[in-house]
Amino acid sequence: MTAFSIAETAAMHRALDAAASPDVPAGPNPRVGCVILSRTGDVLAEGHHRGAGTAHAEVDALKNLAASGFSARGTTAVVTLEPCNHQGRTGPCSQALLDAGVAKVVYALDDPTAQARGGAAALAAAGVRVQRGLCAEQAARLMRPWLFAVRTGRPMVTWKLAATLDGRIAAADATSRWITPPAARHDAHRLRRDCDAIVVGTGTVLADDPALTIRDETDEPAPARLQPLRVVVGSRPVPPTARVLADDNHLLLSERDPHAVLNALAAREIRHVLLEGGPTLAAAFLRAGVIDEVVAYIAPALLGAGPAATADFGVSTIADILRLGQVHVEVLDAGGDPAIRVTGDLGGTDRATTTVPSSMTPPTTPQHAEENH
Amino acid sequence: MTAFSIAETAAMHRALDAAASPDVPAGPNPRVGCVILSRTGDVLAEGHHRGAGTAHAEVDALKNLAASGFSARGTTAVVTLEPCNHQGRTGPCSQALLDAGVAKVVYALDDPTAQARGGAAALAAAGVRVQRGLCAEQAARLMRPWLFAVRTGRPMVTWKLAATLDGRIAAADATSRWITPPAARHDAHRLRRDCDAIVVGTGTVLADDPALTIRDETDEPAPARLQPLRVVVGSRPVPPTARVLADDNHLLLSERDPHAVLNALAAREIRHVLLEGGPTLAAAFLRAGVIDEVVAYIAPALLGAGPAATADFGVSTIADILRLGQVHVEVLDAGGDPAIRVTGDLGGTDRATTTVPSSMTPPTTPQHAEENH
Ligand SMILES: NC(=O)c1ccc[n+]([C@@H]2O[C@H](COP(=O)([O-])OP(=O)(O)OC[C@H]3O[C@@H](n4cnc5c(N)ncnc54)[C@H](OP(=O)(O)O)[C@@H]3O)[C@@H](O)[C@H]2O)c1
Ligand SMILES: NC(=O)c1ccc[n+]([C@@H]2O[C@H](COP(=O)([O-])OP(=O)(O)OC[C@H]3O[C@@H](n4cnc5c(N)ncnc54)[C@H](OP(=O)(O)O)[C@@H]3O)[C@@H](O)[C@H]2O)c1
Repeated sequence: MTAFSIAETAAMHRALDAAASPDVPAGPNPRVGCVILSRTGDVLAEGHHRGAGTAHAEVDALKNLAASGFSARGTTAVVTLEPCNHQGRTGPCSQALLDAGVAKVVYALDDPTAQARGGAAALAAAGVRVQRGLCAEQAARLMRPWLFAVRTGRPMVTWKLAATLDGRIAAADATSRWITPPAARHDAHRLRRDCDAIVVGTGTVLADDPALTIRDETDEPAPARLQPLRVVVGSRPVPPTARVLADDNHLLLSERDPHAVLNALAAREIRHVLLEGGPTLAAAFLRAGVIDEVVAYIAPALLGAGPAATADFGVSTIADILRLGQVHVEVLDAGGDPAIRVTGDLGGTDRATTTVPSSMTPPTTPQHAEENH
Repeated sequence: MTAFSIAETAAMHRALDAAASPDVPAGPNPRVGCVILSRTGDVLAEGHHRGAGTAHAEVDALKNLAASGFSARGTTAVVTLEPCNHQGRTGPCSQALLDAGVAKVVYALDDPTAQARGGAAALAAAGVRVQRGLCAEQAARLMRPWLFAVRTGRPMVTWKLAATLDGRIAAADATSRWITPPAARHDAHRLRRDCDAIVVGTGTVLADDPALTIRDETDEPAPARLQPLRVVVGSRPVPPTARVLADDNHLLLSERDPHAVLNALAAREIRHVLLEGGPTLAAAFLRAGVIDEVVAYIAPALLGAGPAATADFGVSTIADILRLGQVHVEVLDAGGDPAIRVTGDLGGTDRATTTVPSSMTPPTTPQHAEENH
């Protein structure tokens, strides 16, 4: 067992918080934070990566350290991901830490990409003390979509649905607005912040004309750079007045195979898809086995008629029921108008693993997208 | 504001606990408990009503007091319901308390029945100090089905369903056993203990052949006197080998009108019905507006096909959605196989009231069934 000091553990929590800053778009890169500690364990500086094209967390922290007038000599860098060894435009982070004179590096997770891994070994070879594994589980949770995409070569898919207790997502006449109360709708916007693409079918666009943007509680949209790509799947034309077409940040895919949809999105460096489509698209993705996480908002209400949350996806007998793993339940309540949020994973423990085996098959995506450097 | 002492409040909690004893069958009578306190506030005796044909709580407590060699003179009786003034076989409880020399009576709820009310007034007129309203809400919760039946003239109906996240109660091939995990099934047996009749349609009997008995975790049935009446509704014949016919404690009703079903059960002094029928019967009861409480066990799983929790009950647009009030959510978890229990009321705040107005219309049922006395 490696022992970590209290100061290092506290610093890692701070680095994880920095990495999760809401000003960072989901994007193609992992969420990384870095805290620099003095020899006596005081926090001297912190930094985090703000998405493709911006500085890495370690470089950001070293820059902040220098701006405060401190030297990095003899300090400890606490990072949520193994410093990259990737010779991009600015040189690897491992080199930047070495050049600055950092004496020790503590990190949570190994970098799983062929292109960027090896930073720890390079640092150790140059005489820096290196320790790994601190808060590995929290870091894996934070970077889950990115780790998933690196491991599988396709984006992670979270299916969001809003249904009544009897599983209806709309009434018989197709009206569906506000099935769930405001608390659930706000929570669903938080969900959108974690994704870099929102996918629906033409059916949902034609029925509801959703905007598919991140908005706050006063309906004010978030900045454009935080908005996920809006993706509409299907062959029917989308009317030119549709709200999904409001700006260029959209993609129309005349496609029916979920694997092809995900490949098209992987090619655009999409790591996390929020599927908000209707029952037809949900069933197609379930049938293809490409839904990894389910977030269901259940309204304590009954409809008795109207479309169900998902169409038939090929299960005909109870033994084949699709059970969620790692289930979390939360009651969202705003002024006595509650909704129940049920979150869980599909696809068995394999997909829910939180650590990445170092013996993995060659990854298809680098740790950091090229425009990073 | 009436002030109650700490000793009286503690005694009332004890009386409520005694009233809720699991050895008391649901039955036609209210759950009543009684604790007798000395002048200095010590508990001298306790008693509770054990169902039709047995002693009332006050008489039970006075008997236990005498058996311990204490005198009731100058004591305080703490009772969950106003002592009855009902001249039955044994005379009213108000008289029994007077005869014993009780100096003070504290009770939670007024007796709402024409036949039995007036005990408080009779006691006060004879010089006993009487205070009402202590723990009224808890008492009303405990006696809810009985209060409901007294007020409305029909049994209270709790609809129990077990469904997946997408609202399916069985797979496409009608297999449905163990949709929800063991924790939910055990909880559902606890639900049966609170009811005096379980109602299903012929569809459920023909599909599942359920026993509809209370059993423990080892599948051992509870004593016969605790078993609810098993009721099958519908015109199709029930096969003579059906498990619901196992003993005489069943009723076959060739009936389609839910009101008529409830009238037939009210005539048998049923106060609380657990509706465990399939989607057809549930829809009929919802349409008739006679479901008062919903208990849904939601399995974090998906089926995509199969019957929904309820058939169409006449709602066609979202504005008419049936929302539950007083929603409670609990996660039932046994060894990582969770189910979500959602409980709520239907029918608006009117039905959910916890106290009974004294100006109510003439009740149709006496406080205690006649065979009590
Ligand atoms: N409460 C909620 O959570 C929620 C969320 C979304 C939607 N809804 C409701 O759902 C309803 C719309 O349902 P929907 O099922 O029509 O919407 P949908 O699933 O979003 O769109 C269905 C369309 O997706 C396209 N598609 C793409 N891949 C497919 C495949 N593999 N198989 C079949 N179709 C594929 C088809 O378009 P083409 O026919 O054009 O090729 C199909 O018609 C609306 O009433 C809406 O309000 C509710
Ligand atoms: N997961 C769960 O919570 C749960 C619970 C119960 C059942 N189930 C499943 O539900 C399925 C059975 O469904 P079901 O709907 O057939 O069962 P059901 O609702 O129990 O029975 C339907 C029958 O009820 C009778 N009925 C009485 N009053 C009626 C009215 N007003 N309108 C219409 N019918 C009335 C009719 O019998 P007649 O035609 O004989 O007149 C009708 O066919 C089975 O697959 C079972 O496993 C699941």
